[in-house]
Amino acid sequence: MSSHELDVIGIGNALVDVLSHESETFLERHGLAKGTMHLIDEARAGALYDAMGPAVEISGGSAANTMVGVASFGGRAHYIGKVRNDQLGAVFSHDLKSVGVQYTTPMATSGPSTGRCLIVVTADAQRTMNTYLGASTQLGPADVDARLIARGRILYLEGYLFDPPAAQEAFRAAAGFAHAAGRKVALTLSDPFCVDRHRAAFVDLVERHVDVLFANEVEICALYEANEFDAALQQVRRHCEIAALTRSERGSVVVAGDEVHVIEAQKVNAVVDTTGAGDLYASGFLFGLSRGMDLPTCGRFGSLAAAEVISHVGARPVTPLAEIAGAS
Amino acid sequence: MSSHELDVIGIGNALVDVLSHESETFLERHGLAKGTMHLIDEARAGALYDAMGPAVEISGGSAANTMVGVASFGGRAHYIGKVRNDQLGAVFSHDLKSVGVQYTTPMATSGPSTGRCLIVVTADAQRTMNTYLGASTQLGPADVDARLIARGRILYLEGYLFDPPAAQEAFRAAAGFAHAAGRKVALTLSDPFCVDRHRAAFVDLVERHVDVLFANEVEICALYEANEFDAALQQVRRHCEIAALTRSERGSVVVAGDEVHVIEAQKVNAVVDTTGAGDLYASGFLFGLSRGMDLPTCGRFGSLAAAEVISHVGARPVTPLAEIAGAS
Repeated sequence: MSSHELDVIGIGNALVDVLSHESETFLERHGLAKGTMHLIDEARAGALYDAMGPAVEISGGSAANTMVGVASFGGRAHYIGKVRNDQLGAVFSHDLKSVGVQYTTPMATSGPSTGRCLIVVTADAQRTMNTYLGASTQLGPADVDARLIARGRILYLEGYLFDPPAAQEAFRAAAGFAHAAGRKVALTLSDPFCVDRHRAAFVDLVERHVDVLFANEVEICALYEANEFDAALQQVRRHCEIAALTRSERGSVVVAGDEVHVIEAQKVNAVVDTTGAGDLYASGFLFGLSRGMDLPTCGRFGSLAAAEVISHVGARPVTPLAEIAGAS
Repeated sequence: MSSHELDVIGIGNALVDVLSHESETFLERHGLAKGTMHLIDEARAGALYDAMGPAVEISGGSAANTMVGVASFGGRAHYIGKVRNDQLGAVFSHDLKSVGVQYTTPMATSGPSTGRCLIVVTADAQRTMNTYLGASTQLGPADVDARLIARGRILYLEGYLFDPPAAQEAFRAAAGFAHAAGRKVALTLSDPFCVDRHRAAFVDLVERHVDVLFANEVEICALYEANEFDAALQQVRRHCEIAALTRSERGSVVVAGDEVHVIEAQKVNAVVDTTGAGDLYASGFLFGLSRGMDLPTCGRFGSLAAAEVISHVGARPVTPLAEIAGAS
């Protein structure tokens, strides 16, 4: 690749994760649906944080985690997302740059503080997310540069970006720039509730603008209001060039026109925290795709990266993924 | 105990830990002596942070970690230390209160930001600390209330408090209030370089004002400029009612006048991060002492707590220490 070219450019809501371990009772008491993402306002974030036990702060954000994964595989990754010029914003920026992800989006100098995702991890290693978008809502089309987007072999967009209206505009602008430059556009559906909030727009995007789609079973069924995974799979294969559909411990199914590849999950000794599993699957898949690997290899890289990240607390790899991929 | 009484009141520099894993080369390149604490200014903190890899933010502060340990054993703990009214200050306050440690010191509303300890963890699980004191230098005698200090069976002071001058005043005032109320005063020497910076003052304190002293081998030898542990031990037994001297994997020695108790270290499957080992040893010892247990039991509680905290990343227990003590 030319020194100017990038493997993947990701755009998403820039968030710092605040993780604590809580009981099942905690979820019930606060009306939280396990395994999903809830959008919360600042007041609710304050109340929920007060109720949470001692926490750890780690940089997160779905697409940002994915870009860290791409860099960890040895890929060239660039991230676009908005934080404020506050302490958590500095943490977010440091943690991206320190692993080699390019990050140049100007920090907001006024408005809400850096976004946070309050993540409750239960004893079964499931994570339940509560997102205060904060400064990430300030991302807009002005933060998306056509020349930058043209440099990325793949543009990766998170579905969560559809929640803040200005970010949705940035999302559409970026997709337009990518296609105009002959690049691929990838999307993750992010979360079943997110799909419910934006179903019509997502269906339109998938049919007309998305080349590579990431979704888990629940999300793809939600998109097509299908009762069965196979029915949803038959729908999506008509619309996207490639769809990578994840199924937790049952691995993933990659469909591309007439091709169907069933990919096994990578075995993990002990699942500690599932935060970031989908994000890291996408990182392995996108890195492989950007480097021209075949689809089963892309899927296998996704499984390796997901297995690494669920074996410890936090949504970013602690062992270089290039090492793991090299050894496998 | 009366509902009004507290087991332990701790005073220290309030810090948020910023932990990253680095190579031995990183220590050499930045001139860091492994296993010790370096005081750094804001500019150096910025430069060092830029050089560090991705980090995790977790509340720390030596005496604060100890108070969390006391609470985790089921004790009543109160903490005095200064943060600013910024994001990391809110994190620090939340993490103390969420485990039941009382914390009422008013946040600074101007001046430097909340203090940070940049902790470099090497592959041998050793931690090397780089402290930007920040707002913790704003702690002063006005933050120490005589009536509060009188309620605590033991007042626990960290040696690090001697670095910021106003905090040193607060330290002396608190020790005076405690003795006036017939309470015990405990001190940890904190760090060999800290002892070097304040040797004369520490010797005077130990001889005249301290009832219970915590130190590791290097620190107690530094205090008396002794070449051998036994020589230092003979000195300290003449000055303090109780001295608990820790020796890493060789456990601890507790001396009280003519009594000498050799306490074994608790076995650990894998030492992950030694951050907080001394702080948590002190928590177990102080909890036991406050509850009238004999010295070998106090030492054993110290070993149990230290073993818990070195088995994971971060300086505060993740498993309730009351459970561990109950099962042992």
